[in-house]
Amino acid sequence: MRVASLSSYDIRFPTSRELDGSDAMNPDPDYSAAYVVLRADDGSEGHGFTFTIGRGNEVCRAAVDALAPLIIGGDLSDLGGLSRRLTHDSQLRWLGPEKGVMHLATAAVINAAWDLVATAARKPLWAFLSDMPPDELVDLVDWRYLTDALTPGAARDLLVDAAPGRASRAEHIREVGYPAYTTSAGWLGYPDEKIRHLAHQAVADGFRQIKLKVGADQADDVRRFALARAAVGPGIRIAVDANQRWDVPAAIGWMTALAPYDPWWIEEPTSPDDILGHAAIRRALAKSGPDGGPIRVATGEHVANRVVFKQLLQADAIDFVQLDACRVAGVNENIAILLLAAAYGKPVCPHAGGVGLCEAVQHLSFFDYVAVSGRLDDRVIEYVDHLHEHFIDPVVIERGAYRAPSAPGFSTRMRPESLVRYAYPEGAAWS
Amino acid sequence: MRVASLSSYDIRFPTSRELDGSDAMNPDPDYSAAYVVLRADDGSEGHGFTFTIGRGNEVCRAAVDALAPLIIGGDLSDLGGLSRRLTHDSQLRWLGPEKGVMHLATAAVINAAWDLVATAARKPLWAFLSDMPPDELVDLVDWRYLTDALTPGAARDLLVDAAPGRASRAEHIREVGYPAYTTSAGWLGYPDEKIRHLAHQAVADGFRQIKLKVGADQADDVRRFALARAAVGPGIRIAVDANQRWDVPAAIGWMTALAPYDPWWIEEPTSPDDILGHAAIRRALAKSGPDGGPIRVATGEHVANRVVFKQLLQADAIDFVQLDACRVAGVNENIAILLLAAAYGKPVCPHAGGVGLCEAVQHLSFFDYVAVSGRLDDRVIEYVDHLHEHFIDPVVIERGAYRAPSAPGFSTRMRPESLVRYAYPEGAAWS
Repeated sequence: MRVASLSSYDIRFPTSRELDGSDAMNPDPDYSAAYVVLRADDGSEGHGFTFTIGRGNEVCRAAVDALAPLIIGGDLSDLGGLSRRLTHDSQLRWLGPEKGVMHLATAAVINAAWDLVATAARKPLWAFLSDMPPDELVDLVDWRYLTDALTPGAARDLLVDAAPGRASRAEHIREVGYPAYTTSAGWLGYPDEKIRHLAHQAVADGFRQIKLKVGADQADDVRRFALARAAVGPGIRIAVDANQRWDVPAAIGWMTALAPYDPWWIEEPTSPDDILGHAAIRRALAKSGPDGGPIRVATGEHVANRVVFKQLLQADAIDFVQLDACRVAGVNENIAILLLAAAYGKPVCPHAGGVGLCEAVQHLSFFDYVAVSGRLDDRVIEYVDHLHEHFIDPVVIERGAYRAPSAPGFSTRMRPESLVRYAYPEGAAWS
Repeated sequence: MRVASLSSYDIRFPTSRELDGSDAMNPDPDYSAAYVVLRADDGSEGHGFTFTIGRGNEVCRAAVDALAPLIIGGDLSDLGGLSRRLTHDSQLRWLGPEKGVMHLATAAVINAAWDLVATAARKPLWAFLSDMPPDELVDLVDWRYLTDALTPGAARDLLVDAAPGRASRAEHIREVGYPAYTTSAGWLGYPDEKIRHLAHQAVADGFRQIKLKVGADQADDVRRFALARAAVGPGIRIAVDANQRWDVPAAIGWMTALAPYDPWWIEEPTSPDDILGHAAIRRALAKSGPDGGPIRVATGEHVANRVVFKQLLQADAIDFVQLDACRVAGVNENIAILLLAAAYGKPVCPHAGGVGLCEAVQHLSFFDYVAVSGRLDDRVIEYVDHLHEHFIDPVVIERGAYRAPSAPGFSTRMRPESLVRYAYPEGAAWS
């Protein structure tokens, strides 16, 4: 199969009207998608997108259009080669390299290609990937800049070691689902009573971990954390997320103030580019928990690419790898990140929420469990109860766990009527 | 003064037809500029741009247009505040943060604002900055994410210490000029005889340092380096530049093969995001020079922002800070980088070439000498003899040194006829 055409769309949801999604750095997001439809020469389609929070979504769409000539006519039997062609174009590469708008757009295009291929194979993406031989998986990765941390040979060994357990793990995960945690309780714009109610509800719904946004006002954060802890009790994990609000010294001070309420992790304490800063924060908080244990450090939703993830692992700067389905260059680069995390023994706990990020990223975690790390301990996928109704194959959450997706493809297809209604600026939702 | 309007242009020069600018990662660049004209309410203008190498220049222009509503109406008396407003827009920030296309576009807009303000003050930008009091310079910087390495107070102290010598250094640099090195001899696409001739010519023209592109073929590199060394003799510094071609182990091996010819620095040995990789390469080459001394490490033209520069300094990963006038968010972020480099005692040797990068960046080095580091030892500005004829106030090189710019502004204004002829795709150069 070859790619016959690419269509791009600017889709935006007016979420800022409700303060859903509000945090210390992003007070008023309009959850949006730069959305791509690839059509193959046999008429089949693949859908993909990248996630933004409103203004500038049109810039990502322009970047998708700039990539279109590199994929139209491309062979869908070699998605490793296609991925490298998109990220290494000799002129477009200057605009990153491998970061920012161009990389977000590349994610949308590559994810659409995977949706097309997995749909054609009549398998959900996670199962499609989990059925691939180790050598083929290794060939999907762009190994440039990784070999000082992980070689293709070592990655292959890791996949070969995991291969015998694939079938039984696939069966297990279909049965029990993949553990989720919820961020829906803790948006910064929510009043105390709403947080209390939602935290309580989360536990009733079966979640064993929730997350609170922090970082705007320390006294507010202490109060909100205390009431959330009281609502859920001591056995439920509460993570906190500062969305990059702090410098290194501020992160250490603020988390020390929150420590009595037993934070499970601090997420994005500072700049996502600051590998050494995360390492310094993690070292400083290594004995700051209420029992003298660590306050763990997590980041990833804004980590630009595999080279930065590599260093976060080399520097032992984080406890949890929060990859995002649409920030790095799609499925291929996320396979690299899953392999790096497994090699360094760090749990992957993906970022999700936004528009369709839950739908997409669940496939990567299911694949990780079945074919890469083979582990579930301390692994959770973020869950936010937003905008799933716009997807043809929305996530299913039961008793705090993602059910294994069963429909063919990457679960990345929006309903046609949503693509019309939320088209920006001409759709009815914006008029 | 307030900003009344912003106009953006997609300007491209068909340089790939001549193999000028060819290197191991960029074989066929069409040097381009996403170009901005700001008009103030009093009718005065400021021009700025960011540099790209062709395809995708339209994406940068779209990003400039996305920033326009944030600057139109903005007060030009507070360029620190304006800079922070552009880089921290709560929705646009998601597209970086502070990197890639959005940051390139931000550079174009902020640099145009500085051109406007310095022109109105009837001073060349370097002199305009050099006349500002330390407190005002400190206020221009976005200190977020820097305070674990350098606080505003420490930066102020550094500027205050340098203040007494400003006048005499300004006089000195006007007299002798700022040392340059030339890359014009060593493009990867050039035949041996052309390299030999141009290397010889560079020395005759007064340059004490030249640079060769490497990284495509090791045997070719050894041959080219040997003939360049023979042409210039032992007293001239020859830097080499791999343009991010290698992984860490490959960089160490390749540079060991080139060591007998006495490379002054290896530039961009690997990914610009790889702080720990640069540190590992620098450590491995610390005694690899022909006399048992170091092969020095340089990078910066693709370093995304001040947070990555901060870490390159904290990790002692580089010997030379190669800031770029248009990759980070313009003058303001480059002041932060100059301050960081001075605090860590590392020489700044800016990246230049491309379209107008020499014109712009010279102002930052002159300012650095007069008001920040106060030093010239081992400092050089890159020089490439390309496309200067399109600028109203082109750089002047004499005996291997940049002459101090004397016209008001940032030297960033292209000739109106060039803006018409090289407009893409409609200009005559492209028809």
